[in-house]
Amino acid sequence: MPHRSALPPIITLTTDFGLHDSYVGVMKGVIMSICPHAQIIDITHSIAPQQIHAAVRVLAQAVPYFPPATIHLVVVDPEVGMATRQPIALETAQGRFVGPDNGLFGPVWQHGRSIGTVRGVHLNQPAFWLPHLSATFHGRDLFAPVAAHLANGVDLAVLGAALSAPHHLDLPTPTCTATAITGTIIAVDHFGNCISNITASMLDQLGARHTLRVTLGATLLHLPIRHTYADVPSGCAVAVISSDDALEVAIRAGHASHIYQIGVGTPVVVQVQP
Amino acid sequence: MPHRSALPPIITLTTDFGLHDSYVGVMKGVIMSICPHAQIIDITHSIAPQQIHAAVRVLAQAVPYFPPATIHLVVVDPEVGMATRQPIALETAQGRFVGPDNGLFGPVWQHGRSIGTVRGVHLNQPAFWLPHLSATFHGRDLFAPVAAHLANGVDLAVLGAALSAPHHLDLPTPTCTATAITGTIIAVDHFGNCISNITASMLDQLGARHTLRVTLGATLLHLPIRHTYADVPSGCAVAVISSDDALEVAIRAGHASHIYQIGVGTPVVVQVQP
Amino acid sequence: MPHRSALPPIITLTTDFGLHDSYVGVMKGVIMSICPHAQIIDITHSIAPQQIHAAVRVLAQAVPYFPPATIHLVVVDPEVGMATRQPIALETAQGRFVGPDNGLFGPVWQHGRSIGTVRGVHLNQPAFWLPHLSATFHGRDLFAPVAAHLANGVDLAVLGAALSAPHHLDLPTPTCTATAITGTIIAVDHFGNCISNITASMLDQLGARHTLRVTLGATLLHLPIRHTYADVPSGCAVAVISSDDALEVAIRAGHASHIYQIGVGTPVVVQVQP
Repeated sequence: MPHRSALPPIITLTTDFGLHDSYVGVMKGVIMSICPHAQIIDITHSIAPQQIHAAVRVLAQAVPYFPPATIHLVVVDPEVGMATRQPIALETAQGRFVGPDNGLFGPVWQHGRSIGTVRGVHLNQPAFWLPHLSATFHGRDLFAPVAAHLANGVDLAVLGAALSAPHHLDLPTPTCTATAITGTIIAVDHFGNCISNITASMLDQLGARHTLRVTLGATLLHLPIRHTYADVPSGCAVAVISSDDALEVAIRAGHASHIYQIGVGTPVVVQVQP
Repeated sequence: MPHRSALPPIITLTTDFGLHDSYVGVMKGVIMSICPHAQIIDITHSIAPQQIHAAVRVLAQAVPYFPPATIHLVVVDPEVGMATRQPIALETAQGRFVGPDNGLFGPVWQHGRSIGTVRGVHLNQPAFWLPHLSATFHGRDLFAPVAAHLANGVDLAVLGAALSAPHHLDLPTPTCTATAITGTIIAVDHFGNCISNITASMLDQLGARHTLRVTLGATLLHLPIRHTYADVPSGCAVAVISSDDALEVAIRAGHASHIYQIGVGTPVVVQVQP
Repeated sequence: MPHRSALPPIITLTTDFGLHDSYVGVMKGVIMSICPHAQIIDITHSIAPQQIHAAVRVLAQAVPYFPPATIHLVVVDPEVGMATRQPIALETAQGRFVGPDNGLFGPVWQHGRSIGTVRGVHLNQPAFWLPHLSATFHGRDLFAPVAAHLANGVDLAVLGAALSAPHHLDLPTPTCTATAITGTIIAVDHFGNCISNITASMLDQLGARHTLRVTLGATLLHLPIRHTYADVPSGCAVAVISSDDALEVAIRAGHASHIYQIGVGTPVVVQVQP
């Protein structure tokens, strides 16, 4: 029997649908039709089309800041409509998750196991979907309805068959030696700041102090490590530790990605300034 | 007397205002000031400027998925401020609608008549608007207040004078012969998929089976008809039936509109592969 | 002790974060974790990066249309992480405000003083922030938590030390003579309409009637003053009074900024047509 607490259940949306079409609005309509008291929160709809890795990163950043009862609906689904791609739902101590089993949820599942018990199901109960399942829009026909039923208090176990573990995609990890770390730019944000997969603790192990010798693709930079952007003059490059604890190359009041012509996938080599 | 159910009333917004200015936020402020318990849902604010047809299509896609008590506020209003353009509100079995009478609501009215009773009013009661009516922002001064008063339970009949029918714009429809269908691309979505006005039932009547001979503007393509995008290899073109039941030309993991240089208005001729 | 009214508290968001990253979603998660019954409304996240003046203008347009109990969270914060940049919160008869003290709130404070009492604090009580304060994302770690605690009913005085006045940035103001007004384009909206800092009352003082002689940068235009865009034929230029009472140069069904190659900062000289 559905359970309703005094507080509205929260459903977040993360997709690669963009905001130009009706897709996102339609999913919200489906949710409101099934669970009219849901509170819907957009995380982002600007995941680059079909970029599962980018959605994994956004989830890792956002999920810890939401209440653990939150339902995270994630639709980045290049194999929508294929019989081999399973729709799933998961529950961890940090949240609930609904979407395609294509690697999106590997890290939240791993993290969930490290902090408590986890449950997962392969969604195979059409009674909880819209009556007609299209081939190309499971966000509307399957995932949104399931998220709304969860929000209504339906238990995960009723929605499908138990799943041992979701798919996991390996992310590139930096290689570290005594004198250098070789990593990759994994994201460029709205400000043009270039975020790498090199963590603050890797820099600590290298003994990085005041200035880094950073090779970004073909460009060699001698970058001061600073607390924040405004610690250098406008237009100057700077290395900071990003708000999710990674080495970030920025230009104060400038767009580092455009100016250095670097982007996701650009190799980054860090050496300590001799 | 205003009526309030236990569930918050839903007001959706569909505009061509974009998200860069304060326009959308201001309309939400007006709604919250009049009906603080409303739940506001954005459908899209990225209708191309003044493109009434595009808004009509978005409404047709989204409205059926919302609860019938929903109030749909639609502001694509190239004739804002003109005395000849009437502000209206409508009620059908599928929803309530507020916006300018420029053709936006023709299809929802027609559909509403086909499924039940309909009511419409010409909004002529300034008591339900903001005190000052600007010449260029009726979304703020007239339409948002009226939608909020409806959400508060004010009856449609109080808001204006009865209307016999809203304006209706004719949309281009395909021409079908025994051997060919000639239609048009009517939308390009965020993924670059090109959606035509040729429906699945037209293709059935043509006897289309496995492969279509499709002329897109000046380009002749032999397209496999498939269940979904991932049924062809990455980079390959495919014809699918879209989630709103129309012939759609896509490239798996590619942007068909850019690659074939086609867009809204490009003619599409479908012939069955001999 | 926190006070909760029957209506959900409203928190608006205005930032330069864009919608491509997780930043906005993360701030919403923080708010929902602290004040789960808050109603979050986006004003815009498309303030141009670090453009404090643009955010000031958006606030001036939007704040008057929200209920006075609304909490406006504004994060345009080029000096994030600097010790010299103070986080603040303000209360006026028109609303409450949370963000960096870099000039964002000068006008709302001035206006607040003109209509009633005002209060302000320098936010210096980490008990109301997230446990870890990053150097580059105070929107997440400090401002969102403070806004959520305000929404929970925490009094401003508990959150920090009293502030005499926030910083104020002077905006350029037009110069007026008996025969001409010299101003500036201060905004270009989504439609390409160019909004100046010349007000309707300045035009009245000049005795402007039917046609203006307007020099926009290097271009001289003879513009009819009309009630609304559609009062001229499609493709024609027109001067209207914008919905916030300023001289606006537009092209009906066209993009004036692109066509005249003008933008924010372009000088505007208005003379009455002889």
